[in-house]
Amino acid sequence: MIDQKTICAISTSPGMGAIAVIRLSGSDAISITDQVFKSVREGKKLADQKANTVHFGSLVNCENVVDEVVVSIFRAPHSFTGEDTVEISCHGSVYIQQTILQLLIEHGARLALPGEYTQRAFLNGKMDLSQAEAVADLISSSSSSAHAVAIKQMKGGISNEISHLRNELLTFTSLIELELDFSEEDVEFVNRDSLLHLVKGINRIISSLVNSFQYGNAIKNGIPVAIVGDTNVGKSTLLNILLKEERAIVSDIAGTTRDVIEDVITLEGIQFRFIDTAGIRSTDDAIENMGIERSFDKIKQAQIVLVLFDSSMQITAVESFISKIKDQLVDKNVILIFNKTDKVEQKKTEELECLANLFGMAFISISAKKHLNIDLLEKELLQIVNNMHNTEEDVVITNMRHFEALVAAKQAVERVIVGLEQHISGDFLSQDIRECLYYLGSITGEISNDEVLGNIFKNFCIGK
Amino acid sequence: MIDQKTICAISTSPGMGAIAVIRLSGSDAISITDQVFKSVREGKKLADQKANTVHFGSLVNCENVVDEVVVSIFRAPHSFTGEDTVEISCHGSVYIQQTILQLLIEHGARLALPGEYTQRAFLNGKMDLSQAEAVADLISSSSSSAHAVAIKQMKGGISNEISHLRNELLTFTSLIELELDFSEEDVEFVNRDSLLHLVKGINRIISSLVNSFQYGNAIKNGIPVAIVGDTNVGKSTLLNILLKEERAIVSDIAGTTRDVIEDVITLEGIQFRFIDTAGIRSTDDAIENMGIERSFDKIKQAQIVLVLFDSSMQITAVESFISKIKDQLVDKNVILIFNKTDKVEQKKTEELECLANLFGMAFISISAKKHLNIDLLEKELLQIVNNMHNTEEDVVITNMRHFEALVAAKQAVERVIVGLEQHISGDFLSQDIRECLYYLGSITGEISNDEVLGNIFKNFCIGK
Repeated sequence: MIDQKTICAISTSPGMGAIAVIRLSGSDAISITDQVFKSVREGKKLADQKANTVHFGSLVNCENVVDEVVVSIFRAPHSFTGEDTVEISCHGSVYIQQTILQLLIEHGARLALPGEYTQRAFLNGKMDLSQAEAVADLISSSSSSAHAVAIKQMKGGISNEISHLRNELLTFTSLIELELDFSEEDVEFVNRDSLLHLVKGINRIISSLVNSFQYGNAIKNGIPVAIVGDTNVGKSTLLNILLKEERAIVSDIAGTTRDVIEDVITLEGIQFRFIDTAGIRSTDDAIENMGIERSFDKIKQAQIVLVLFDSSMQITAVESFISKIKDQLVDKNVILIFNKTDKVEQKKTEELECLANLFGMAFISISAKKHLNIDLLEKELLQIVNNMHNTEEDVVITNMRHFEALVAAKQAVERVIVGLEQHISGDFLSQDIRECLYYLGSITGEISNDEVLGNIFKNFCIGK
Repeated sequence: MIDQKTICAISTSPGMGAIAVIRLSGSDAISITDQVFKSVREGKKLADQKANTVHFGSLVNCENVVDEVVVSIFRAPHSFTGEDTVEISCHGSVYIQQTILQLLIEHGARLALPGEYTQRAFLNGKMDLSQAEAVADLISSSSSSAHAVAIKQMKGGISNEISHLRNELLTFTSLIELELDFSEEDVEFVNRDSLLHLVKGINRIISSLVNSFQYGNAIKNGIPVAIVGDTNVGKSTLLNILLKEERAIVSDIAGTTRDVIEDVITLEGIQFRFIDTAGIRSTDDAIENMGIERSFDKIKQAQIVLVLFDSSMQITAVESFISKIKDQLVDKNVILIFNKTDKVEQKKTEELECLANLFGMAFISISAKKHLNIDLLEKELLQIVNNMHNTEEDVVITNMRHFEALVAAKQAVERVIVGLEQHISGDFLSQDIRECLYYLGSITGEISNDEVLGNIFKNFCIGK
């Protein structure tokens, strides 16, 4: 168990900025700040100030001014953590940030652990566990769809859904357990048919949440896409065109940086991450030598595979290429793309499309150079993602931990259903229902332990 | 002239953090925020709230929640810029930061130019120009001494000094110009001896400020140090030892990053930047082949040169090495370092030190491996910097623009002194005094124009 000492950390992005914010939380947050804060108004003490007010002054180390700062005061329980909280807004030099941290530590605060602010918010009942996890997702979300699901989860979307299921089950399980207390009298407080009906309903909802994970994960982490194809079919041209519009959107707003690790396009808020495109982009298509094995590697990592052909290729060559990689494409979303369609007769295009039909694969004829049908390709990409969203549930699961808990809950629920259908005794039923309750409760943190919490919050950044 | 529209920018360090702060400044800052802010308390309007208060709620784009935020309100003239100001503290994802900026721009704000907040603070009389420049210095200061001079300047250290000089001169110049009006009557309102006395006093102070620039610049930017010497004399060992203690200090505080571009040690708050040490550190001394020309290049860039020898070298070899580089060392601060002193007889050490004396150069005998006299070397480094501080003035000039203005002011003052000594007429005196006043006024911004301001603020970051 972590101590409840007052903690401090730099909460803004590391490095130099115009300003930085250092946050203190804990019962001594205000008194520690008072020791080093000198208001412009002589003798003014933060301890005497109202909650939710800001104050201008200097932070001093003995008599030396460390910085001129603006200090905001929040009082328990009306703060993010539910504890007394002070936010110090200082000039954003790394030196000043470090010096202030050191000063606060010298006066009794300790450096916060990763995620400790959010963990305290959870422990103080300001949010449940899935909401706390949504805070981290929100901070790392980089597309509008990932952002939207994180906001929804932070506002309690999943919590409400899970709590609802759990409460329904709880009622039944207490009745069943009551039966067990009276087992010698052979009473039945719970109508088995209503229970079966309820549990089947719960199973449907849990299954639906489990199924939503593929879509949720795609939204949260983006969808890996591979572009494969023979030399000189126009892979680099196509990639550049897909990336081009994205660039314009990103550079819309100055003053922000963006780490480009891989080539990413965002369509209607969904990110498509192009795998291993360094080679494609740095080499000229004509020079590049894309071995078939390298294609296999890329396909393995991808969820969507774009297989690119030059429309002027011999039908037999196209057929042979598809046949070679066909086995790799099972379980993948595949689009055959016939590029340079403007350079061949309509008849050739039709032949190619006929071939694609024979293989039962989706296809588009485009011209990357002439921007022909690029919009159709983008629509097709979006359609693949929308098809993943094969659930009527409004709530989408994006978190692997939630997914695993739901899968375990579903297995328990299915055992309950089988048990009910086979008329097994209440104590076995009760055990499986309890297990289901346990897993559902672990999602919202109604059931948790230090190890679980430790694993969750260690992946947060310091300062959150 | 820049328009006075309400501006917005991300004020915290770019990139992802736990939180980020977006600042609006201008007469519409509060009303623009009100359009997109939805308090947790129904119907609450920021426009109705007191200054210096913070408010929790959501930022919404139409009905979509962009983020849960804390909003701080400042009202003119009691804000950094002197205008109505709103600070929005949001979750620190880059996506959220961009989305909020876009939202504010859609509702009537525009993106701030670099340094525009500080520029508005200057134009609204919240600070003078040298104070505004100190804000930028403060943000980029990375050592305690650089930080201390920036804080002093921000709090008006230089401004007071310059204003004082300027006011004294102004009195005299108005009297002299009054004389000119009555020139036909040949009256003398100004006692030439008192004026000479005053101007000489001013010249002393300006000279002292000019001289302080070498020290100020060293403090602000660190002092470039070159380590040169033959192969296998222990350069890498010495460098590693000098750097080692520094590392420990830097890693004291977690949660902050530090961009290492070059090897830097900080002694008593002064930074020493080691030039071109990549080769030294990555290669073993024994393998490294340090050509004499490469040494010359390094010496050229350095303010301090450490010339390293193995104490077991032949005296003639040491003498020959020194002779070879001697011409390059004029105007440099040089320390001859005789390493591995533990491996030779006392007599040999004395011979080497005697040789150093013959060349009139500072020297230390050390053993890098055994940490012998490393403390003396560090003291010697500090002494060199303290010797630069050859002025009694408390105020130190660190800014090149100020330095240039002071040099020009000094030239004008010297012309006034010569003129007074040669009894030249009042109109010539007046012209030179006006010139001096102009340059002094340009430092604090009492005299400025759009071009000067543009040049100063364009180097600020956006958001400051």
